[in-house]
Amino acid sequence: MGAAALIGIDWGTTSFRAALMDGTGAILDRIASKDGLLGVGNRDFEGVLERAVAGWDAGRSLPVVASGMVTSRTGWVETPYLPCPAGPVELAAALARIDTSGGRRIAFVTGMSFRHGDGAPDVMRGEETQIAGLGLAGERLAVMPGTHSKWVHVTGGRIAGFRTAMTGDVFAAVRGHTVLKLTTAESTGSPEAFAAGVRTGAADGGAGLLGKLFRQRAGSLLGDFPAAETAERLSGLLIGAEIAEARSFAPDVGGPVLIVGGEDLAARYRAAFDALGMASEVAAPDAAFAGQFRIAKVAGLV
Amino acid sequence: MGAAALIGIDWGTTSFRAALMDGTGAILDRIASKDGLLGVGNRDFEGVLERAVAGWDAGRSLPVVASGMVTSRTGWVETPYLPCPAGPVELAAALARIDTSGGRRIAFVTGMSFRHGDGAPDVMRGEETQIAGLGLAGERLAVMPGTHSKWVHVTGGRIAGFRTAMTGDVFAAVRGHTVLKLTTAESTGSPEAFAAGVRTGAADGGAGLLGKLFRQRAGSLLGDFPAAETAERLSGLLIGAEIAEARSFAPDVGGPVLIVGGEDLAARYRAAFDALGMASEVAAPDAAFAGQFRIAKVAGLV
Repeated sequence: MGAAALIGIDWGTTSFRAALMDGTGAILDRIASKDGLLGVGNRDFEGVLERAVAGWDAGRSLPVVASGMVTSRTGWVETPYLPCPAGPVELAAALARIDTSGGRRIAFVTGMSFRHGDGAPDVMRGEETQIAGLGLAGERLAVMPGTHSKWVHVTGGRIAGFRTAMTGDVFAAVRGHTVLKLTTAESTGSPEAFAAGVRTGAADGGAGLLGKLFRQRAGSLLGDFPAAETAERLSGLLIGAEIAEARSFAPDVGGPVLIVGGEDLAARYRAAFDALGMASEVAAPDAAFAGQFRIAKVAGLV
Repeated sequence: MGAAALIGIDWGTTSFRAALMDGTGAILDRIASKDGLLGVGNRDFEGVLERAVAGWDAGRSLPVVASGMVTSRTGWVETPYLPCPAGPVELAAALARIDTSGGRRIAFVTGMSFRHGDGAPDVMRGEETQIAGLGLAGERLAVMPGTHSKWVHVTGGRIAGFRTAMTGDVFAAVRGHTVLKLTTAESTGSPEAFAAGVRTGAADGGAGLLGKLFRQRAGSLLGDFPAAETAERLSGLLIGAEIAEARSFAPDVGGPVLIVGGEDLAARYRAAFDALGMASEVAAPDAAFAGQFRIAKVAGLV
């Protein structure tokens, strides 16, 4: 391992992750905490950051690259969205650089926007950095599952376009705040129930969702399946609908869909693709830090 | 007006409505309160009912017909679902009759179930009585908007099949418990925003809903529309999706869609149909009491 050369910060709404990297991008040490943006009092982002990395760089000599919701309206520095297509070169050129009152150099990676063919808008903050970290060659379709799942069309290392599905957000809201809360409180894990939900959700190109949702209630009332399976069925239903919706996005991209995400969610999406007979593979972890390093390198920060 | 001959009770989860009717079904008096099923303590349904109607019939001599969620698991008397097709004759034959401890005769109208062509289940409780009250001739498609909107295919006065969409339930959950809550807190009424939402929701046969939902966030972030319009756009989006989904249900039924519901919601659905260039008309109110009277008459209770 070489000497410390860069600090990467992946700062989201509810989480804070940091990595100390050497001049090759190898990770020397890492930190993860619950110090998400929402929990930062009095907008003291600098204080939270410096306390977190004091053990690495009390002298504040290392450059910092930060990405994620930290550049949103509720973050530290709001930056405009960079339109597609864009990759590490454009992201490096668009870095928002500040010197903190304490003398720390920080470069913020901005988010990206996309206009679909019909003019419909889409935005991301953070995922563009992960995609940069994957170092993808050729043409590829990646899914980044989560609260707001991103489907990203990558060509020649740059993001050509992307599509967001509000899957995780809708799952939590429907599970917790509709009639389905009556049957999702207790949940038994069942791969079969999940797979059945996926197939139902994906049927008819993902159409009919408002009807399919109610049937998760009607089915348990009529004894079609145990009520305790409802949460797994609902999860499958929404992920299946998301996948079917995304088929009309970048339909010509071949090869397995690349799943970029945490272990549990990646496994869930893997199972969903399997249930639909679609090829997929799971990307290596730590893409965010790798992307920050790549962008920092292009920008001459390391 | 004739002498009092029947008491109708439309008892839902959060509301209680009652009507005193004469021997022709004309309404002599009515009551509405917030004494929904959820608020009844110690399962004292009888006590709530008798206090409500004491002014009409302290002697407990009039027959009572009750419909709605009062026959569900969380209601007074749980009754099995009557399968489609069924109408007033079948509903009258399936009445669940009890004599209360206080000597009151009550007949409960049960709910109905339906199996779609692919076996998918659907259920209703209460709407079957409203449909019976409309006295429809020939073939007709009716929509009963609400928390769980029902699309009902009526043939020769009987319900041939129906389809539920979880529209209102999903609207409240998404508006209050997803990222859209950031922009739906303050809402300016805008018929144009609603109509735009309807057209977006109905596009592609209602498919793509998880993506369309996120665009209500992305669009306000990118300045496509004022954030305060988000709630109206969201309402339109979901109602548009519901209408598009329902087009594949009973597609051969001609004529305007009959809207059966309260004034505000009926006007909203009327505007949605207009935005899509679809013919619709609003049904007369009080269908539930009319349905109770019709079923009571078939059953020989009046």
